[in-house]
Amino acid sequence: MLVELINTGSELMLGRVLNTHQQWLCRRLADLGYVVTRQVAVPDTAHDIEPAIRIALAHADLVITTGGLGPTSDDLTRELIAQLLGKKSHRNDAVLAQIKNYFASRNRPMPERTAVEALVPEGAIVLPNPQGTAPGLAIEVKPNPFRTGQKTSWLIMLPGPPRELRPMFDDFVVRILRREFPLEAAFVCRTLRTGGMGESIVQEKIEAPLRALVAAGLEIGYCARIGQVDVRLSAQGANAQTTVDSAGKIVREQLGEHIFGTGDDLLEGVVVRLLTERKQTLALAESCTGGCIAHRVTNVPGASAVFPGGFVTYSNETKQKFLGVRAETLAQHGAVSEAVAREMAEGARKQTSADFAIAVTGIAGPTGGTPDKPVGTVFIALASSRGTEVWKMLNPWERETFKEVTAQQALDRLRLMLQKLCKTP
Amino acid sequence: MLVELINTGSELMLGRVLNTHQQWLCRRLADLGYVVTRQVAVPDTAHDIEPAIRIALAHADLVITTGGLGPTSDDLTRELIAQLLGKKSHRNDAVLAQIKNYFASRNRPMPERTAVEALVPEGAIVLPNPQGTAPGLAIEVKPNPFRTGQKTSWLIMLPGPPRELRPMFDDFVVRILRREFPLEAAFVCRTLRTGGMGESIVQEKIEAPLRALVAAGLEIGYCARIGQVDVRLSAQGANAQTTVDSAGKIVREQLGEHIFGTGDDLLEGVVVRLLTERKQTLALAESCTGGCIAHRVTNVPGASAVFPGGFVTYSNETKQKFLGVRAETLAQHGAVSEAVAREMAEGARKQTSADFAIAVTGIAGPTGGTPDKPVGTVFIALASSRGTEVWKMLNPWERETFKEVTAQQALDRLRLMLQKLCKTP
Repeated sequence: MLVELINTGSELMLGRVLNTHQQWLCRRLADLGYVVTRQVAVPDTAHDIEPAIRIALAHADLVITTGGLGPTSDDLTRELIAQLLGKKSHRNDAVLAQIKNYFASRNRPMPERTAVEALVPEGAIVLPNPQGTAPGLAIEVKPNPFRTGQKTSWLIMLPGPPRELRPMFDDFVVRILRREFPLEAAFVCRTLRTGGMGESIVQEKIEAPLRALVAAGLEIGYCARIGQVDVRLSAQGANAQTTVDSAGKIVREQLGEHIFGTGDDLLEGVVVRLLTERKQTLALAESCTGGCIAHRVTNVPGASAVFPGGFVTYSNETKQKFLGVRAETLAQHGAVSEAVAREMAEGARKQTSADFAIAVTGIAGPTGGTPDKPVGTVFIALASSRGTEVWKMLNPWERETFKEVTAQQALDRLRLMLQKLCKTP
Repeated sequence: MLVELINTGSELMLGRVLNTHQQWLCRRLADLGYVVTRQVAVPDTAHDIEPAIRIALAHADLVITTGGLGPTSDDLTRELIAQLLGKKSHRNDAVLAQIKNYFASRNRPMPERTAVEALVPEGAIVLPNPQGTAPGLAIEVKPNPFRTGQKTSWLIMLPGPPRELRPMFDDFVVRILRREFPLEAAFVCRTLRTGGMGESIVQEKIEAPLRALVAAGLEIGYCARIGQVDVRLSAQGANAQTTVDSAGKIVREQLGEHIFGTGDDLLEGVVVRLLTERKQTLALAESCTGGCIAHRVTNVPGASAVFPGGFVTYSNETKQKFLGVRAETLAQHGAVSEAVAREMAEGARKQTSADFAIAVTGIAGPTGGTPDKPVGTVFIALASSRGTEVWKMLNPWERETFKEVTAQQALDRLRLMLQKLCKTP
């Protein structure tokens, strides 16, 4: 099966934005057993979009487009495709009512031109968009005038904004794919997410034990992210489930506590879940991560039950005033030190009466490093009823990566402690 | 001039990595006046790479490939292209010496298969790779067997690792482009970034006033981001600069204070810059944004000079204890209320002695809404020496978008106030 992805957007061609759709859709499709064979990005002009769609329909079984469904003059995809397939578009009253309702429920007037989003080419399936106004569209191109033997293709148009595209894909597109493109042989895919180890170490640990399963058809993929390595195990055919199950068991044996989750699990989600299960709470005292850890924790629905609050103490004064860090400690050891990290964590725990408190203090850069404490130096403290532990790390990355890596390491320390506590009641 | 970019890599098609090459190269090329007209990603197989190159050479003046120049069995690009162009490859002794030297200087043995990287197709220009081993290659395809009239194309192959590709492009490719593709006419592009208005409103306001310039060759592009719409103005030709300047002036007249920056400006960067210029400071009291605003502000290098610290007060208790919000206010109005937002901002300002304090309290969802205060309700307060203002907003998006939109709105309120203060000393 040939799958082609077409991303439209002049901002892509000018390099103004990263093509996150490409990664997200390729990943989702691969996990469902459909590998994208070609991805194309073109500007928002008819001159460029039309040949891209024509070429894609000439060879692919499934063509997915992103973007160009909105109300502005450079949103051309819907109309271009209707023309290319010789289909008339009609106003769909149900869609129009949804669009009107969308604006009404937000007490905003509906801009007149938004009505164009209710135009639906003949024969197209409407994919609802609860997160926005422009619906997606799915068309069975049958007969397909661009393909040898007029072989049928499916053409699916998705809106550009990720918050609209993603639920639409999960809730509506997957169903169409499963129905129209049933896999010839079972495809099983499982991703295990690990923290605290580099990609080559992960590979070294599991490669030899998995060798026999690879010979039997197991595929292993690695994806190194910020402070995290994903191991993707997949197999196709009658024994796919057994193969992936056995592989998962071996990987768990080899990597043990480094595995923090599966699939799309995020470390902050695992931490909030473990705290919720234990009815315990977390406080934060962030210097160099500047709110990054709190932001990640509060991205998790239900975080309010386990997270009373946190402090971002970017100056010495706020470290003293909010957290009770002593002036002598700051003077003697400096703000980036084991002693200050310890006092920050203990202060945050005391202020909030939380069960756990994480504190981080470090040098995010680009300036502020010294020979003793270069840019990237960071101390992570974890305070609990069992006392306070502090770790020193070196994360010599640029500022934003530094913050993300440090947040990841800090959350992983808490995750490891919570998992140990779960095992030793 | 038609420019096509081909990114090879099976990891791209499985969605394991983001295609950062695409953004980086598209951006660099656009800044030089060469806009990529089409970008294609294909897996590391001859079956997929060959047609991609063939199609690109059939219409583009310049084709750039990334990846596939290394020593492993899935590095096929160099050999495939030599075959496709009917060129023999010869070992280049200077390149081989550089590769040997690379390993020797690192006290590592040279893996035998690395020697393949010294094979250079006849007529190719070698692009040195001081950061790695595989050189880039530039070939003038003349005559170009795939193109109508055999019109000449250039084909440039760059290595996959970003730390090798980027300096190679800047140091060697730019020179070839300038020499082989001198710009026929000036290209000018400017982006204005706006906050506080939806995409259709922005378009409605500027479309008619810009009509005459569009007729004279102006191109307008819109890019809707979270709480932000970018307006891109571009033109080519002798009058490009005048056209874009005039358009910029009209857009500024029409959108006024909604414009917060140009190019790649981020709202948090603008706010930190304005505060730095005025030697003023900001404190934060975040409930529903959970640290998102602090995280964004501290992403800006130099934020420490204007941001002493902030509070994430996710519970009623921490709102009272950290910020001095009164129990009566919470009981009478609820945590999501104008009165609580006001007390939070004033409390944060008092605690930190900052010039400004922003507070946000709202219902991020997915649960917690009431008929009176549905999910998405949020109060934003801004306290300063001139008193405290509070705005009520409705941001009925899913949790993470809600946080980003609210953070954007809050930062934009401060930006507007700072800009007004700059004008009225």
